[in-house]
Amino acid sequence: MLFHVRMDVKIPHDLPADVAADILAREKAYAQDLQKSGKWRHIWRLAGEYANVSIFDVRDNAELHDILSGLPLFKFMEIKVTPMLRHPSSIRDDDT
Amino acid sequence: MLFHVRMDVKIPHDLPADVAADILAREKAYAQDLQKSGKWRHIWRLAGEYANVSIFDVRDNAELHDILSGLPLFKFMEIKVTPMLRHPSSIRDDDT
Amino acid sequence: MLFHVRMDVKIPHDLPADVAADILAREKAYAQDLQKSGKWRHIWRLAGEYANVSIFDVRDNAELHDILSGLPLFKFMEIKVTPMLRHPSSIRDDDT
Amino acid sequence: MLFHVRMDVKIPHDLPADVAADILAREKAYAQDLQKSGKWRHIWRLAGEYANVSIFDVRDNAELHDILSGLPLFKFMEIKVTPMLRHPSSIRDDDT
Amino acid sequence: MLFHVRMDVKIPHDLPADVAADILAREKAYAQDLQKSGKWRHIWRLAGEYANVSIFDVRDNAELHDILSGLPLFKFMEIKVTPMLRHPSSIRDDDT
Amino acid sequence: MLFHVRMDVKIPHDLPADVAADILAREKAYAQDLQKSGKWRHIWRLAGEYANVSIFDVRDNAELHDILSGLPLFKFMEIKVTPMLRHPSSIRDDDT
Amino acid sequence: MLFHVRMDVKIPHDLPADVAADILAREKAYAQDLQKSGKWRHIWRLAGEYANVSIFDVRDNAELHDILSGLPLFKFMEIKVTPMLRHPSSIRDDDT
Amino acid sequence: MLFHVRMDVKIPHDLPADVAADILAREKAYAQDLQKSGKWRHIWRLAGEYANVSIFDVRDNAELHDILSGLPLFKFMEIKVTPMLRHPSSIRDDDT
Amino acid sequence: MLFHVRMDVKIPHDLPADVAADILAREKAYAQDLQKSGKWRHIWRLAGEYANVSIFDVRDNAELHDILSGLPLFKFMEIKVTPMLRHPSSIRDDDT
Amino acid sequence: MLFHVRMDVKIPHDLPADVAADILAREKAYAQDLQKSGKWRHIWRLAGEYANVSIFDVRDNAELHDILSGLPLFKFMEIKVTPMLRHPSSIRDDDT
Repeated sequence: MLFHVRMDVKIPHDLPADVAADILAREKAYAQDLQKSGKWRHIWRLAGEYANVSIFDVRDNAELHDILSGLPLFKFMEIKVTPMLRHPSSIRDDDT
Repeated sequence: MLFHVRMDVKIPHDLPADVAADILAREKAYAQDLQKSGKWRHIWRLAGEYANVSIFDVRDNAELHDILSGLPLFKFMEIKVTPMLRHPSSIRDDDT
Repeated sequence: MLFHVRMDVKIPHDLPADVAADILAREKAYAQDLQKSGKWRHIWRLAGEYANVSIFDVRDNAELHDILSGLPLFKFMEIKVTPMLRHPSSIRDDDT
Repeated sequence: MLFHVRMDVKIPHDLPADVAADILAREKAYAQDLQKSGKWRHIWRLAGEYANVSIFDVRDNAELHDILSGLPLFKFMEIKVTPMLRHPSSIRDDDT
Repeated sequence: MLFHVRMDVKIPHDLPADVAADILAREKAYAQDLQKSGKWRHIWRLAGEYANVSIFDVRDNAELHDILSGLPLFKFMEIKVTPMLRHPSSIRDDDT
Repeated sequence: MLFHVRMDVKIPHDLPADVAADILAREKAYAQDLQKSGKWRHIWRLAGEYANVSIFDVRDNAELHDILSGLPLFKFMEIKVTPMLRHPSSIRDDDT
Repeated sequence: MLFHVRMDVKIPHDLPADVAADILAREKAYAQDLQKSGKWRHIWRLAGEYANVSIFDVRDNAELHDILSGLPLFKFMEIKVTPMLRHPSSIRDDDT
Repeated sequence: MLFHVRMDVKIPHDLPADVAADILAREKAYAQDLQKSGKWRHIWRLAGEYANVSIFDVRDNAELHDILSGLPLFKFMEIKVTPMLRHPSSIRDDDT
Repeated sequence: MLFHVRMDVKIPHDLPADVAADILAREKAYAQDLQKSGKWRHIWRLAGEYANVSIFDVRDNAELHDILSGLPLFKFMEIKVTPMLRHPSSIRDDDT
Repeated sequence: MLFHVRMDVKIPHDLPADVAADILAREKAYAQDLQKSGKWRHIWRLAGEYANVSIFDVRDNAELHDILSGLPLFKFMEIKVTPMLRHPSSIRDDDT
């Protein structure tokens, strides 16, 4: 089941640099593990913004929330979730 | 080059049914041709909305505009374009 | 799987009264059938507004969209879908 | 009498961890006591957000305000209240 | 129980003048009957706007909705309801 | 002359507790004196919000501003003023 | 007493040209009479918009509303009123 | 003197096709004449939108308004004007 | 050339009192000098808000920006500039 | 390929003055180098705002993001990117 997720990162400017660096390193590892598992299908950077648009393919809403609330950057992000489904004009059956 | 495009369809309720049906049939054929060409990479329906989120892979801004302004539904849609690029945490090189 | 859905009804003032009455009668029957099936768990009126908040319990995003886009009033409504899940402070296991 | 309440939690990032933990523990106990009493009918987590949608069944506006302003997290939340009532298409009499 | 209600009137410019006049006459009689009954406590015009702010004193949300949805102008208004209660700094006990 | 005023209180979470308590005590005394004088006609709490809606009856805009800018909480509030007048459907002459 | 008023004109495109011309001629005469009387102190056009910002000097809110609701274009305008007063840094006593 | 102007075109869908075509032809000629005169320095299309961003170089606000309100499409556009000036980091003296 | 400028003052609550007092004293002197020069034609306080609406009469956009960015409070204000011109219904030639 | 970029600068008021000065000096050098290279075609100050509108001419979205995210002020700016193209009414072929 597909979800469109936009994440905007807002790191407070007075967060110590080493704390931020540690969070960002863990964030990257976390995101790559989920991409390898197939649950985090796509992640794209938005030009000029500290933000991404991602596509998740998960079992249900609860699994999506577990993944998102587990993000090391979770408390420093604004997240917007939009549920999606296969479009009737799609030429692909597996792009649900 | 990737673009994120959201399209919201607003067909006036007093548009004659046959006019609308003709536009929608042409819209579907147009969208499927572009998907087959690889330029319209993804199209997803948003749950509960007469709207889609699409990912386009085009040569430049001008080609994107030509495609979007050629949509049979163009005059009945609100379109929002966001330029995207490969995310540094992406595990894929070809998901630019 | 639970979804929070808000529906705002905007019937054009120049829609013939008998057309509107027919749509509304079909809407009510449709909503009641889905409530009986358990898929439309709750429907509440918002005080002073021609709008409702509903809770749906469906298999996935696609089933939710089928239900919502099949509403006789669909073309005259603004619909906002929000995916939900069991809250960690809930005292009930079955309130998903 | 039913009210729809959305609560968005915004805990300042510089709040000491033990202070936050204490507030959250008291918040959970408070919420569960009110659920047991029947006044806090439902609480759901919104996927990907530090927020909930709740349904309260209270005697009047004053009782609702007493409950909400007594939340241990009250000063760290944005709260939006919407009064509701039985929908004419509801199949239940007691889902007022 | 008190409610703050703002009503913005949007009469379509192509509504026939006699239809509009009839609605407005019925609206005025309806509003004055409810003021006499004590349920519609206050009604004020907002300077420069075709809008009013009103204070209702009703038994519950359902009674409020019955009153508002029964307004002859209901279909031509945007209505915003806000539940209120006695303020702790108020010097009056009977100003709810 | 009547004015509708909405005040939203935003006290910074790091304001020392005794400073806040002192401001709130002075705010209450200030509000009650003005109510007794007849200039602050009504004050109501909004359910679930740290906010009030008030009705002022003052000589002119300047007197209203003197009162509002003199509020002990002034620097911690967002204030929205709306000028009002007697509504033509009002049954009362003195509810100007 | 001074008020800042912004008026945005929205004339429906299907209003007959002679009806529109008649309204506009009456609007201009009405505005000029009030300027001569001193009640409509200033009127300025906003560059590129079919809108004006005006300053009114009136006895009270009721007089302001009588003037604005009497505008021939009233039903085709969005009007926003903001009450003003002499600024403490003003060098003029008579600029209220 | 430079101005940034964004124009969004909203042509009513029931405007007769020949009327629209005539307006658009006159619009193009008008825009090209002003470009040749140097007053309309730049005009760019926004990808996917029926809108443009333009840069005008005019004598004053009045000349800008004369130009914009004279656009054949003026009544079918939303226009937003932003005054600009030379940026202190610009390497060009003549880019105002 | 006339400009409408709205300034909203947002002084951080933790700015030392003597620093704030010094800025405000310099702001007042600065504003009064410009009023005497005729460039700052009007300044009005908005009732209940820490904000003003001002009318500037300057040579061009650059002079306006020099004046505004030189305000001692500049870094603590949100400023919105709107270019204006003589209204065709104005009875005054010199109120450009 | 052209992009319209608006940048709003928000420097925290408690950033040490020498840190801010250093960032601003590097920002200016960075912007001027890119202007000389032809990639940063235009930069204009918005009157009364700590903001600019810029036009970039870059190879693709990725190059634009590299430039923008490399700005010394990047973490203190809100940036909005809009892709553009040659307008059909433009008289210039090279103003793509």
